[in-house]
Amino acid sequence: MKLSIVLSLQPARFEAVAFKGDLARNLAKIAGWGYDGVELAIRDPQAMDAEELAKLVAAYGLAVPAIGTGQAWGEEHLSYSNPDSAVRRAAIERTKAHIPVAHRLDALIIIGLLRGLVRPGVSQAQALEWVTAALTECCAAAAESGVRIALEPINRYETTLVNNVAEGLTLIDRVGADNLGLLFDTFHANIEEASIEESLLAAGSRLFHVHVADSNRWYPGAGHLDFAQILDVVARSGYAGFVSGEFMPRPDADTAAERALEHLRGAMQPNEFGV
Amino acid sequence: MKLSIVLSLQPARFEAVAFKGDLARNLAKIAGWGYDGVELAIRDPQAMDAEELAKLVAAYGLAVPAIGTGQAWGEEHLSYSNPDSAVRRAAIERTKAHIPVAHRLDALIIIGLLRGLVRPGVSQAQALEWVTAALTECCAAAAESGVRIALEPINRYETTLVNNVAEGLTLIDRVGADNLGLLFDTFHANIEEASIEESLLAAGSRLFHVHVADSNRWYPGAGHLDFAQILDVVARSGYAGFVSGEFMPRPDADTAAERALEHLRGAMQPNEFGV
Repeated sequence: MKLSIVLSLQPARFEAVAFKGDLARNLAKIAGWGYDGVELAIRDPQAMDAEELAKLVAAYGLAVPAIGTGQAWGEEHLSYSNPDSAVRRAAIERTKAHIPVAHRLDALIIIGLLRGLVRPGVSQAQALEWVTAALTECCAAAAESGVRIALEPINRYETTLVNNVAEGLTLIDRVGADNLGLLFDTFHANIEEASIEESLLAAGSRLFHVHVADSNRWYPGAGHLDFAQILDVVARSGYAGFVSGEFMPRPDADTAAERALEHLRGAMQPNEFGV
Repeated sequence: MKLSIVLSLQPARFEAVAFKGDLARNLAKIAGWGYDGVELAIRDPQAMDAEELAKLVAAYGLAVPAIGTGQAWGEEHLSYSNPDSAVRRAAIERTKAHIPVAHRLDALIIIGLLRGLVRPGVSQAQALEWVTAALTECCAAAAESGVRIALEPINRYETTLVNNVAEGLTLIDRVGADNLGLLFDTFHANIEEASIEESLLAAGSRLFHVHVADSNRWYPGAGHLDFAQILDVVARSGYAGFVSGEFMPRPDADTAAERALEHLRGAMQPNEFGV
């Protein structure tokens, strides 16, 4: 099982993004600690040079399993479920703009808060219809480049659209695209899933990406989640992708990143020895 | 260990309140299921006849371990930390108005969302100062009647003032009143406490009341919390009060109440046999 950690490529208000600041310096640190990859949070991919970015991460021996898109929601309020069709269109076009970068980096595109939430005066059914239409269009465009999209169930306090794996699978069925799957985040799952293990198994082959944070959104090991058990189920589910740390930078970003790696390696230990 | 369940005495928007509607009919149901007590959510105690209320609950053989005050926040926006001193004064007077009812029912008064949250333009320190002043005044008034007040740590998404047991104990120390303690709610603890068990033990003699809901805020048994372990620690901590169900009315209020009782009794089974 390969480990990565979230890195924001530009200042963001999204607190759970683990790193901010100078890219090369941070890539050096992440590689130095022993992570295998870096998940990049990108607000606007058109402001990036994908080729330069790919060369830089490769120079540090890091893979890029996923691109996070939440900053476009947090900073620009773009969303698939805004009643204003121009805002929905901008969110869709922003997603499509990630496709060439994702293709170049061999990364998948995460749809988290970019789907938005149910606004006053909008029905849940209408909001889900807009999200379905947006994902259908984005998945079709991504499929042309062989890029996958991972929808993240997010807890009830942050969105009213897709809080758990079951709701995520229903939406995926509705979209009906092979390149649409789920991002499973352990912090959200601790609140929303009746059983973390059963929901992972229910995701099955639709499990496209995994985020780890402990129950209190600190680094794994700082709360009460059993990562040995969770990672064992992830492995048994057939998932072969990255496990990516997305947690609060506490007590500080560097300490959190180092402790997460140590804890996750300890949790994976039995599998490494084939037990 | 005695079991109770939350009952709202008037329509409220607070979804986690398990029951609404006609009081006598609900008391009969709660007693019929086998609960030992009923926790009453009261918006304005001055609209109540404490004597009549006491006789009614006694007629059904039910104790009233606690009175919830959150409706005054939810419906009237009263709070200890509002920048408007008139609102803070109203929240304090509302709390004091609960004292005669609490005294008559031998109940404690819960301070949950009534403490409020940090408003724009207000510092965390200023908000905590207002909350401290309010609790100091309310505890002094309650002490004259031998009434206790229980402050509930609430998760980060609902308030920015006192999210966990450690912050609760700090505030209690600051207030310095013997009749101020904590309400431990398992749903909030699942998100906020690094260790549910250690935080219960840390609360120690300041553990005045316990709320149970499962990790997804459904009835105990519907999520992934280990109530056998939690109730064992509660018992070992020396807590002799009620364990009170406060959870979402899903799939419906009656089913949730019955399943909670069954699950909690099962979780307490080993202690009943002295194991």
